[in-house]
This record gives sequence, structure tokens and C-alpha cells, in this order.
Amino acid sequence: LPLQIDHFGFDENHTFQQRYLVADQHWHKDNGPILFYTGNEGDITWFCNNTGFMWDVAEELNAMLVFAEHRYYGESLPFGNESFSDSKHLNYLTSEQALADFAVLVEYLKTTIAGAQHSPVIAIGGSYGGMLAAWFRMKYPHVVDGALAASAPIWQFGDLVPCGTFFSIVTNDFKKSGTGCSESIQNSWKAINHLSSTDAGLQWLSNTFHLCSPLKNLQDAAVLKNWLSETWVNLAMVDYPYKADFLQPLPAWPIKEVCKFLKNPSLSDKLLLQNVFQAVNLYYNYTGETSCLDVSQTATKSLGEMGWYYQACTEMVMPLCTDGVHDMFEPQKWDFDALSEECYRMWGVRPRLSWILSMYGGKNISSHSNIIFSNGGLDPWSAGGVTQNITNSLVAVVIPDGAHHLDLRSRNPLDPKSVQQARALEICLMKQWIEKARHSH
Amino acid sequence: LPLQIDHFGFDENHTFQQRYLVADQHWHKDNGPILFYTGNEGDITWFCNNTGFMWDVAEELNAMLVFAEHRYYGESLPFGNESFSDSKHLNYLTSEQALADFAVLVEYLKTTIAGAQHSPVIAIGGSYGGMLAAWFRMKYPHVVDGALAASAPIWQFGDLVPCGTFFSIVTNDFKKSGTGCSESIQNSWKAINHLSSTDAGLQWLSNTFHLCSPLKNLQDAAVLKNWLSETWVNLAMVDYPYKADFLQPLPAWPIKEVCKFLKNPSLSDKLLLQNVFQAVNLYYNYTGETSCLDVSQTATKSLGEMGWYYQACTEMVMPLCTDGVHDMFEPQKWDFDALSEECYRMWGVRPRLSWILSMYGGKNISSHSNIIFSNGGLDPWSAGGVTQNITNSLVAVVIPDGAHHLDLRSRNPLDPKSVQQARALEICLMKQWIEKARHSH
Repeated sequence: LPLQIDHFGFDENHTFQQRYLVADQHWHKDNGPILFYTGNEGDITWFCNNTGFMWDVAEELNAMLVFAEHRYYGESLPFGNESFSDSKHLNYLTSEQALADFAVLVEYLKTTIAGAQHSPVIAIGGSYGGMLAAWFRMKYPHVVDGALAASAPIWQFGDLVPCGTFFSIVTNDFKKSGTGCSESIQNSWKAINHLSSTDAGLQWLSNTFHLCSPLKNLQDAAVLKNWLSETWVNLAMVDYPYKADFLQPLPAWPIKEVCKFLKNPSLSDKLLLQNVFQAVNLYYNYTGETSCLDVSQTATKSLGEMGWYYQACTEMVMPLCTDGVHDMFEPQKWDFDALSEECYRMWGVRPRLSWILSMYGGKNISSHSNIIFSNGGLDPWSAGGVTQNITNSLVAVVIPDGAHHLDLRSRNPLDPKSVQQARALEICLMKQWIEKARHSH
Repeated sequence: LPLQIDHFGFDENHTFQQRYLVADQHWHKDNGPILFYTGNEGDITWFCNNTGFMWDVAEELNAMLVFAEHRYYGESLPFGNESFSDSKHLNYLTSEQALADFAVLVEYLKTTIAGAQHSPVIAIGGSYGGMLAAWFRMKYPHVVDGALAASAPIWQFGDLVPCGTFFSIVTNDFKKSGTGCSESIQNSWKAINHLSSTDAGLQWLSNTFHLCSPLKNLQDAAVLKNWLSETWVNLAMVDYPYKADFLQPLPAWPIKEVCKFLKNPSLSDKLLLQNVFQAVNLYYNYTGETSCLDVSQTATKSLGEMGWYYQACTEMVMPLCTDGVHDMFEPQKWDFDALSEECYRMWGVRPRLSWILSMYGGKNISSHSNIIFSNGGLDPWSAGGVTQNITNSLVAVVIPDGAHHLDLRSRNPLDPKSVQQARALEICLMKQWIEKARHSH
């Protein structure tokens, strides 16, 4: 659909093509509901393939499925190859513009598809897309009748939640997945520091970790440590109860598998790090087809890293920190000024710390309605999520055994009872919203 | 207060100084409420002086008064003298940016004024400012607890209301203010057309209407007719029951006064138009100090015509039309394409017809709460206003004897009962909102 590049100004009057996917085989043409996936930071086909929940419930709800791609991701590039060239071209990459895209798209669908004029619309999204789903309902309640915001850390901003909880959840996941596991990781940092102080050690690390490009100095060693940290975080996000391929192809309960290599935290530096390699190799090379490990990549290429990096440098400023006491990571304070400098160097823009709070209300959202906030107990992003009911119609669903938006994935025989119940409640509430929307027409 | 010139993008990172006025003599420092005037298209001191209602109720509500100037008006110019130089500098003149200004200002006041942290906030505005008050509550319910939207034509967009009602209300005001009055005006157009077909006639019109610059051709005559139309519209807007000076200094019930000159619609062209001059001269020269009439000016210079003209060329597209049957004007169809061309010629921008509906929901606003929509029966802008309750907490207040936001003006011994009752209900509802907000903290 051609959409305004700038919804909020009139000087830039060009349009761009937004991609969206529609599945209507189960849709009742007499104003059956629309489940609208609010696309997040990646290729929409990938999200479409990883949101089995919508496909599973389409028939029961007689629903049309729509997956809308977020601007600046996948094929929805406002300026084609130039989209990321500078801050001028990136200027229209904001959550507000994305929500306006979604609003205009929904209205377009309702006016152009026969029988959809009075279709109730429910926004569904996970992670950043979950924030967008919630915010979509908050800002455009005339367009969406309700929202399922899965694993949406809408409170991971400003000082709404402690910055350290995120990493302590990651640590707990490893702690309970095997004896010695989180301690092994905790001890690995010092081991890397020791080894990276000599050229021979750097060489050994490069070989041991099968790195695609060898480490040359302390800075490279810091990159290695960052990459390892991100790997542990990603494992916490995708600690699903069955074999899956979200960020990477992985076995069931991958942290348990990883921890099998990390039972003894007291080994010598080299033996410990050889085990750490085995652990991350399981994450990056479960298929056995990876020839070397690339420290510049931690997840699927379907995610739009460039775009997200810019968003994290502008609106999406989520304070995170570690202390090495309540978590297994090297201590690192939250440093806004350093972020701001890095963002300015990188993109020529500076992050605005409090804007998201001013725009979307922070914790003061009780006047809104019809939003489900679901969170998994294993998921570090639940640290910034809504995990207690705010009102009767702002409902928190907690899935103790769930990782990152497990509830949005396809039904699976290995699903824990908690996610089955969460989905049942989500479906029940969505049906209520649909009924209510139907009666208001 | 320094505010971002662009809240919705990060490439333009400069700030500008927004002007706001504060009166706190009646404020209870223990989280007494804040009445927040959402400034519209003019100098904020002028609105401050014409919104006596807020001053009248400050003591009763123990309220702080804040009057916030709208960007691009008064002294709140984002680029100083350059602000109107081209579409690039005008790019940040939108309702969305203005609402973001207001949100950031309220949050700033609550965090910097001791005792205001939990102050309930009520937005109050009239006309476009009334739309802003309503939209402020809709979009930032975490910032404002309720809104009084006086004479706010939030439905004068798209095809939500018939385009002709506006001018038929103007016509009715004249019809019931004196026999022959609306008919005299109706007949005046043809008389002007006759006279302006000759140079002598143009000369006679220029002399008779005491015009500052003489009419030279048919185009000038069209300007004269437009100016007369706007004068009748303005009179309908300010048909107050007492002597007042809003758009111009005027006597009580000015339309009645004007109509005293317009009793005989059957006079010859020249006699009829001499009477029309007497009528408009009352509007433009009630003080007797005006030496000539200027067809380029219809109201106080405190209104920012440039800025509003731009807004009417971008977001604020309000379809209006006349048919000469249900109204006393020359028939003129609503012509979006002509508007679009004129806007492009004038500013290099094109209006977006449906954007305001996508953004603010059109008639589909029932999920919001705590908004009073007040409208005067004499006010043409009531054509696009909310005049029936939408829900228990979206309340319509109708003032049959009221012109444009009469309820926002100071109490006056000549106030009709209807406006007294309207204000009593408004105060009662505001007290309820304040109580409720207080208990939620």
C-alpha cells in the first residue's frame, strides 16, 4: 500500500510501498474479525512464519489474518537502498510513523475489502511488535478494538523498572538449567581477560572459538565478550520447550543442553573456555553446517539490525545494567551519555530519554482498555513487562515456563500447561472484545 | 520552555521557546488542580484575556491557571522571523506537534512546581483550541484527566457532517434577528455583481464601502464579496448578549444592531448596498475610529492568519459550502481540488483530506472519557460539533442562546440562563474528574 513517508509533516509529500500479507481462508465475509499483526524490526514473512498462534486461532475466530511490515524493515523501505544512508533518510523511522502506517492500512482494508467495513480488529504483536500492538490500541482505539501485546517491555524505559532485572532473569535461567552453569559463565569473563592480555592468548581464543576473523587486540576481545553476553541473552529468549528455529535452529530447552557443557566452573581458564565454546557452538552450529563463528552476528538475518540500532539510538532507549552479583555478567553501569555519544557518532542523532514516556504514558495507562500483556517467566524482557493486572480490561497474563512470546508460537505437544492456559484466556478475551465491537455497530 | 521543534523525528534536534502564562494566586499548593488552556491560532495573551471562565472558577476549584501558546503563533515561533518563510520552516506546524508541546509542558510543570506532582489536570480550549483540548485528552490521557472542548468542530472534517449547515446557521441568526435582514444580504450579491460590471460601478462600490484601496476589477469585487461573507460569519460567531470585544469591539447582540440597517430587501441596488455598508461599518467601526475599511482583514490582528491559513492547507481541511437556498450566500460548492491547487501555489504543500479522521477517530470516539463538548446554538461552528452525548463521560452541552464559546467568557449579568446552566454543569463535571484523579493517586 502506498503510505505517506511523513504522516506528521507536509513538506515531504512522497509515499512508499508498505508490504503486508493477508490470509483470509477462514474469514467470515460478513464482518468477521481481523487479526492484525503489528510488524516489528524484521522481515514480515519471518514474523508471519513464527506467529503460529494467529494461524491456529483463525478458524475458531473466523478471522482474517493481516501481517503488516514495519517501515524500514524487510521490503518496506521508504527510500529503497538509500533508506539508511543518513539521518535525513532515517528521519521517518519512529514508532509514531509506524503506528500511523498501521492505522491507515487498517482503514484502507476496511473500506476496500467487501464485508470488512465493520470487522472488529485486534492487534497482535510480540516484543517491540507487542509494544506497538499495545500502543496502537492506546493511540488509535477507533481503529483497533483490542490488543494482545506478547512479551512487550513497555516499561523498560526511563526509571520505571530497575535496569538490572533483565540480566538477573537471564542468569536465573542458566542457574536452574544445570549445576555450575551460571558460575561457569561468570568465571569465563576473567578467563577471557587473562588470555586476551597476550597475543598468544588472543590467537588461542580465536582458534578455540572457531572465529571467522581472528582477535587482534583488547578491543576485539571486548567484542567477543559482548557477543557471548548477547548469545546468553538470546538463549534465554528462545528457551522453548521443543526444537525450534526462531533466532537460530535449536533443540528443546536449549539452555539445559548448553549447560551440559558448563558443569564445572572451577576448571583452568583454557578448559573452561573450551567448554564455553562447546556451549555457544550449540547455539550457532546446531545444524553442524557453520564453518566458523562470526562475532558480528548473534541471530537470524531476518532481523533488521541497522534499523533497530537506529531506533535504540532515538526513541527506544532501554536502560540495562549488570553488577556481577545478581547476575553472571561483568559489571556494567547504565551510561546514557556514552550511548548518546555513540549514537551521535554513528547516526548523527541523539537519543531522547523521556520521550517514549511522554508519548505513551509510562506506568500511567489505566484509562485505556482491552489490552492483554503476556509475559514469560524465563524471558528477560518480562523485566520491563506488565505482569500484574492494571484494570479489569488491562490484563496481565504470566507464563512461568515461557520464554520470549512463546504464546504467539504454534501449538505444540510439548507446550507446558501454563502456555496452553494463557492462550485459552487470550482467546476468550479476544472473543469478548469481538462480541462487544460487533454490538457497538 | 525550550521544546523540541520536531517531536516526531530526530534529524531536526533544535528546540524553540514556547511561551506560557501561569496564574497561581488561587492554587492550593497541595496538589490543587491545573486548568490548562490549550492555546490555538493566536497570541496567548489575547486568549488569556478572553477566557474569563477560567479566572472565574479558579478560586472555587483552588486551581492554577496555565495558558500555553500554540507553536507558530504569538511569540512562540520555532524559527523566529523565518518561521513562515517556506514549507520547510512550516513543516512543524501541526496539531500533533502542538499536542506534544502541551504534554511535555504539563509534565515539566508537574515535576518542577513544588506541590504539583499529583495535580489533576484539565484541558480547556475553544474553537480550534477546543479541538486540541479534546484531542489532548484522547491522545494523552496520562497527562490530562479531562477536557472542556468549547465550540470545537471536531466533526467538520471529511463527510462527517453536511458542508452546508455552517452557513445555514449563520443565515438563521440573521433571519431571526430582524425582518428582511437575511433577504437583504441575500439580494446584495446580485447588486454587487451588477455594479462591479462597470468601472463606474466599481468606483461607486469603493466609495460607498469606504474601502482603503479601491476595487479595480471583477477579481477585486470577488474579494469584496468574500470579505462581506466572512463579516457575516464573524458576526454570527460573536453574537454575544452584551457589549464585547473579541474579534472586534461590538455592542450587545450585534446581529440585531446590524439588522436594523437591513430591513428592506427590495430596495434598488445602490440603496440596498448603502444599507449593507451601514451594517458592516457597525462591525468594523463601532468605535468610530476606523478611517477606511480594509477588505484584507476581518478580525483582530491577535489571530495568526498566516499560520492558520497554512494549517487549513494541510491538516485542517474543513469542507464548507453554500447553495443560496438554505442560506443567504452565493452558491459555492465545496471544491477540494481547487483548495489543493491554491495551497500548492501558496505554500508548496497539499492538504490531506482524511488524515485528521485517521488520527483522531472521526465519529468513532466512544472509547475515550471525560470530555465535555459545549456548543452554542447561534454559532456556525456548532455544525461540526458534538451536540449529543456519546457516552456517560463524553458529554454534550448545548447553549441555545450562545455564540462561539460564550461559556468560556467571563460571567456577565446579561448572560442568558442557558450559559449559566452550561457553566454550572461544566464545573460540576470538572470537580468529579478532579476528585477521581485525586483518588487514583
